[in-house]
Order: sequence, then C-alpha cells, then structure tokens
Amino acid sequence: MSVIKIGGNVLDNPAQLDQFLTDFAAIKGPKVLVHGGGKIASELSKQLGIEPNMVNGRRITDADTLRVVTMVYGGLLNKNLVAQLQARGCNSLGLTGADANVIPAHKRSLKDIDYGFVGDVESPDQVNVPFLASLAEQGLTPIFAALTHDGQGNMLNTNADTIASTLAVALSRQFEVNLIYCFEKKGVLLDVEDENSVIHHLQPDNYAQLKEQGAIFAGMLPKLDNAFAALQAGVKAVIIGHAAEIQTIAAGEKVGTKITL
Amino acid sequence: MSVIKIGGNVLDNPAQLDQFLTDFAAIKGPKVLVHGGGKIASELSKQLGIEPNMVNGRRITDADTLRVVTMVYGGLLNKNLVAQLQARGCNSLGLTGADANVIPAHKRSLKDIDYGFVGDVESPDQVNVPFLASLAEQGLTPIFAALTHDGQGNMLNTNADTIASTLAVALSRQFEVNLIYCFEKKGVLLDVEDENSVIHHLQPDNYAQLKEQGAIFAGMLPKLDNAFAALQAGVKAVIIGHAAEIQTIAAGEKVGTKITL
Repeated sequence: MSVIKIGGNVLDNPAQLDQFLTDFAAIKGPKVLVHGGGKIASELSKQLGIEPNMVNGRRITDADTLRVVTMVYGGLLNKNLVAQLQARGCNSLGLTGADANVIPAHKRSLKDIDYGFVGDVESPDQVNVPFLASLAEQGLTPIFAALTHDGQGNMLNTNADTIASTLAVALSRQFEVNLIYCFEKKGVLLDVEDENSVIHHLQPDNYAQLKEQGAIFAGMLPKLDNAFAALQAGVKAVIIGHAAEIQTIAAGEKVGTKITL
Repeated sequence: MSVIKIGGNVLDNPAQLDQFLTDFAAIKGPKVLVHGGGKIASELSKQLGIEPNMVNGRRITDADTLRVVTMVYGGLLNKNLVAQLQARGCNSLGLTGADANVIPAHKRSLKDIDYGFVGDVESPDQVNVPFLASLAEQGLTPIFAALTHDGQGNMLNTNADTIASTLAVALSRQFEVNLIYCFEKKGVLLDVEDENSVIHHLQPDNYAQLKEQGAIFAGMLPKLDNAFAALQAGVKAVIIGHAAEIQTIAAGEKVGTKITL
C-alpha cells in the first residue's frame, strides 16, 4: 500500500496537479492520498478579511480560520480532487479524521503558544484500520484532507505530514506500506542549490554521519527524524521525491530519496 | 432504514440543530442524513462579492458559486455535522455523490435556462448501493451534502430533496426504507396558517381528492408528487414532519404526515 502526501506547491499549479492526478490514478495496488492546501486557505482568508496569524511559521487557527480551512481543505480541494480522480477512473472518496472517526485527535494543549483549533493525533493504535481495510477491499481510494476532530464536536486543523505518517504506521499493521512525500524537489539534496545532488538512500548510519557533517539542510531534519520514527513503527520504506515522478517512485524504482532502516 | 432530509431552517438555527442532532444520533437502526445549506452559501457568496443569481427561485450555479457551495455544503456544514454527531456517539462520515461515485449524475442540459453547474442525478439503479450497505454493516451513518459530480472532473450543485429520494429508492432494493423530510412545520397542512391542521395520512385516493378541492398548498404539490413516485419505486413510507419531532417520526409513531400507497 502506498500512502502519498502531496505538497502545497502541486495543489497550487493546475498543470502539475493535472499530471500528478493522472499518474496517481495509474498507480497499481491500494493507495491513500493526503493533502493540505495552506496557500489557497490563506487566499480565501484574505478575501474574507481574516488576517493570517503566523507564529514561528505556523498558522494560529482561531474560530474564523478553522471555518476557512474546513471549507477549503475539507470541501473545495478534497471534493475537487475526488471528482478529478473519478474522471480518471480512480474510485476515490474524500475523508477527514472525523469521518468514521478514522483519526482520533485532541486539541493541542496550551503551552507557550495557543495554536487554537489545531489537532494533535492520538496514537496510530487508535486509527480506524478496519474501516480503511474495508475501503481497500472494495477498491476505494481514500483522499484525506488535513483535518481531524476532537471528539467533542469541533474540527481541528492538523499537519498533513503527521496525518500521512500516522496513517502509514497504523496501516503497516495490516499492509506492507510505503510512505511517500511528494514535493517540488527531486529528493533530499546534499546541496540545496543543486537539484542533481539527491541522496538516493538514507539509512541510520549514513544519516547520522551526514547530520554530523552538517550536510543535510536543517529544514529537512524534522521530516527525516519523523521518517525514521515511522520506519521504526513498522513502515517498510519512506520515499521523498518530486511529484512529477510519483508513478516511478510508487513502482519502487530508484527515484528520489529512499529511507529505510 | 431511515433516509432523512433536513431543511435549511434547522441548519441555520444553532439551538434547533443541536437538538436535532441529539435526536438523530439516538435513532435506532441504519440511517442516512441529507442536507443542503443554501442560506449559509448565500452569506459567504455575499462576503466574497459574488452576486447570487436566482431565476424562478432557483440558484444559477456559475463557476464561482460552485466553489462556494462545494466549500459550504461539502466542507463547512458537512464536516461540522460529522464532528457533532461523533461527539454524540454516532459514528458518521460525510459524503457527496462524487465520493465512491455513490450518486452518478450529469450536468443539467441547457434548455430555456442555463442553470450552470447543476446536477441531475442518474437513475437510482446507478447508485452505489453495495458501498452504502457496507457502511451500514459497519454501523456507519452517511451524511450527504447536496453535491454530485459529472464523471468528468466537475462537482455539481444538486437538489437535496432529489438526493434524498434517489438514495431512498436505491436503498429500498436492499432495505425497508422510510424517507423522512424534516422542515419547520408539523406536516402537510390543510390550512397553511393553522399548524394544527396536519393531514395525518395521505394515500393516492384522498390525495387526488384534496388536490381536486384545491385544499393542498400549491408549493407542496411537487414534493408530494415526488413522494408518491418514491413509493411507487419501492420506498415503504414517506413522512413529512417537524425537525423537532424526528425521533418520534423515525420510531414510526403517528406524527407528521405519513404518505403511503
């Protein structure tokens, strides 16, 4: 099973998105797509006169902003992705963590910063895997918007990378799962300026070495630490690569950065 | 199985909606909820500077309006209904006709008026009943937003009454189905000014008689004609009643207007 997270830059580019969806629809075997949509949410916020409030690069989700992301992620983007995949013969359905209580979560507890209606997912053990397995049996492809709920009636804005890794770990108890992060670069780069400096294979030993040498771009470190955590929790491989290469990546060919234990 | 359509007036009233959802969650047996949300969509349109364009009381759905209804019906309202039902222990999931291709439809063909991105559903024979049956088996309650898709990548704004009757007819091949329309009156009234003039039982003979006498409010006729069509197509009973009485109605007690063959 492939759990694929698509980055915001692809969602914002109609031509790239079109090609990505055609490629995604053609991937064989059970698959899951996870998306956010922060840029389009910011645009709608602006149109509605809601000032985006960012702290340390993270969006503060007040009640008005929660309305916007619920509309944009759960409605506009999610349903259009589903309609466009249906047109490509991929029988998909749109979900959030609230639907069928697939991904239980809770509102992030207040420490230094009040992030507002932001969700932290519970353990992968609490994911509704039987429901996802029944979808896979029926040949249905779930498309997840980056939203969960608190079990008390509120939707919660939730990090799409976290949703993808939580689903991948949970599904790995029943399936052999590859977790794929698609973005606008060809993989993890040794030199952030050089698209051809892709590290093809990361394992704990060379990762530790590269970290020590300071050779990996700092912004990539949390993503990679999460990738290794997902592997330790049962995911078979994590692949980071370009959205335009999703078909080759999903087919298991050597493209992008493959991360294994 | 109960297929319940909730009117816009209930969605717009937080206290009424709260009570309705508590009552709905408590209904025993498999159930389906269908909702629109025209008033909230109109408010968002206005905020975004999109002029609502109504012809003969029907909304013309241009591309901008389609974005708005996809956001409001499929995202904001649908996901909040799901979250609020989850909080009441009702394991629900939100759907449109596009999800799992549950309700195939096509864009309304252009005759005198171009309604834009408005969907006419295909025959109930094309509804994905096996998927809905699998949800019922898993104890999951589908919540339908009034949206379908054209199979070519576009979402379509679709009449919620039609979605409810199409689902009810399709499901009646496998379940014993009651189709319930909840609105802000106690049932079909003999005197539109008198809330106590509810007609308790309508059958083809007294319906014909009341129509001849001009005793039924004209605005109710298309709804009733559709109700009889649904009965002829296999639905066991159609009940029209007040949203506040949904629990009693769903329990089969004599409330509202019951329509049978």
